[in-house]
Amino acid sequence: MALKRLGTQSVKFDIPPSVYAEASIVGKKEGEGPLRGYFDKIESDPYLGQSTWEKAESELMLRTVNEALKKGSLSPHQIDFIFAGDLLNQSIGSNYGLRDMEIPFFGVFGACSTMAETLSLGAMLIDGGFAEKVICTTSSHFCSAEKQFRYPLEYSGQRPPTAQWTVTGCGAVILSKEGIAPYITHVTVGKIKDLGIKDATNMGAAMAPAFVETITSHFKDTNRDPSYYDLILSGDLGSVGKSIAIDLLKQEGYDISSNYDDCGCMIFDNKTQDTHAGGSGCGCSASVLCAYVIPKMRLGELKRVLFIATGALMSPTSTQQGESIPSIAHAVALET
Amino acid sequence: MALKRLGTQSVKFDIPPSVYAEASIVGKKEGEGPLRGYFDKIESDPYLGQSTWEKAESELMLRTVNEALKKGSLSPHQIDFIFAGDLLNQSIGSNYGLRDMEIPFFGVFGACSTMAETLSLGAMLIDGGFAEKVICTTSSHFCSAEKQFRYPLEYSGQRPPTAQWTVTGCGAVILSKEGIAPYITHVTVGKIKDLGIKDATNMGAAMAPAFVETITSHFKDTNRDPSYYDLILSGDLGSVGKSIAIDLLKQEGYDISSNYDDCGCMIFDNKTQDTHAGGSGCGCSASVLCAYVIPKMRLGELKRVLFIATGALMSPTSTQQGESIPSIAHAVALET
Repeated sequence: MALKRLGTQSVKFDIPPSVYAEASIVGKKEGEGPLRGYFDKIESDPYLGQSTWEKAESELMLRTVNEALKKGSLSPHQIDFIFAGDLLNQSIGSNYGLRDMEIPFFGVFGACSTMAETLSLGAMLIDGGFAEKVICTTSSHFCSAEKQFRYPLEYSGQRPPTAQWTVTGCGAVILSKEGIAPYITHVTVGKIKDLGIKDATNMGAAMAPAFVETITSHFKDTNRDPSYYDLILSGDLGSVGKSIAIDLLKQEGYDISSNYDDCGCMIFDNKTQDTHAGGSGCGCSASVLCAYVIPKMRLGELKRVLFIATGALMSPTSTQQGESIPSIAHAVALET
Repeated sequence: MALKRLGTQSVKFDIPPSVYAEASIVGKKEGEGPLRGYFDKIESDPYLGQSTWEKAESELMLRTVNEALKKGSLSPHQIDFIFAGDLLNQSIGSNYGLRDMEIPFFGVFGACSTMAETLSLGAMLIDGGFAEKVICTTSSHFCSAEKQFRYPLEYSGQRPPTAQWTVTGCGAVILSKEGIAPYITHVTVGKIKDLGIKDATNMGAAMAPAFVETITSHFKDTNRDPSYYDLILSGDLGSVGKSIAIDLLKQEGYDISSNYDDCGCMIFDNKTQDTHAGGSGCGCSASVLCAYVIPKMRLGELKRVLFIATGALMSPTSTQQGESIPSIAHAVALET
């Protein structure tokens, strides 16, 4: 069997896995943003009926996975594996949310890059012959993230203009060995990059180099260029990281300015919603992908999308110890 | 292509990936235990020359991965992917330890089950045709774990008899498409189990049901029974979880009492080293596997080993919120 590798970091699927079904559920603020008409559900209660924000995030993931199963007319025992991740310490959003699902479980952590990581691994397990159906899901919650990474909400800390707003949201994709378009045709797995940015309220700047490294490798490995894609989508560089990414890629000889957007810039109206540099969090790129991108591909409005989720791999502890922010980005090519 | 699945949770490899090289590095206390003659290196300085315990853990992983590369006469650019995980919030042990390696990176989290998770995924990516060489590594550090999960070391909190002692250690395995024995022949991927145990100082009791669920599924899926294996090895149930596991499996009709041991029971002499119920942490099963089990297989002293790493998926936050402890176990069959 020939190795299904392209170049140094990419994979090309023999039988590209199908995006069989997908679902997205978000919070109230996300439901008031530009994509409000696209999400499957908008939860008005930030607690989702639970007693804590962490339990709310678990409930959000459980509801989203169940919604994806319902839309795919599938039951949990028809799923071979589930890949899940979130931003909470020890990934308790995923571990508690999915503990009663009885599906063989792989926990992953790549900060806000996690959705692309789950899709990469899920697609490889299907094309490798190990699974017929795999669920890929990630979540984030504004309140649990603020509490854990930043300040108590009650403190009302001032946010600098470069800060991003963690999305309350979850996306779940069911990949299938057989099924209709869109398909995952290629994956480019990221390397960790750390260019020395230490400002945890400027994650866009920290993550942009990882985005540039991965997309450049993707173009070289696949012999494609930016014009091949209808849409190149990063998640979540925000407005600061987005403009840095465009500039850095120009230096590499690639112009993505005409067909590039960022999930963090799409989910909020930064001018009216006071979200500064835009959205972030595992649930941002996951919910934008599931609510907007995949449905647009099903409608034929988008045919070739390169989805590149980016993650800042620091913790509050590493920041307090004066460390810089290592980042990573994984690219997933979706085609109809 | 036929699906490489067995039963509901297991995978059988067409061309079983080879354990090409492995390395283990541990701390001083582990280096004074029963396995002291087996580790590649014993670090006498708990800081490994760094300024914090978290940085020490990162350094430990970096040194262990480099040791495995050296033993395999490989350089980083010959590695297709690296799977890594640890117990620290946002997996900073792995993310910072490996940030300069320039190897396409997948972060995973399964608490103390993580080593088996990395081996499962690494083996699937090789047999699936996506990689020729993959590194699988996990670490833990007593001081960073105590600080994060329990009490400040300076507080000298009393430990109950059921408590386990987090191992300062790291193991790294290089899997290869081609190579000598031992090989990974089967994998059984665990489901999350939560039977309501809430005592975070009795993780053995919390994890034993996950171990029983996975090993029972492994026997059913592969049509094997305990007598097939020279050694069944859990990591890390400790002495409390080990005896619960033996009892629970008897109820399922399986007697593992004659060929079963636990990494947490092997790494320390609980009587003289004051480690109560034994060792734990991602680095416990990883270092025991790499230092003792794989070398014994290379020598022909062990021929068939079932390695089942178990993880308790709680966080301090979930414990403080009164939650029970979800657990998981993944099984990896190693054969010569």
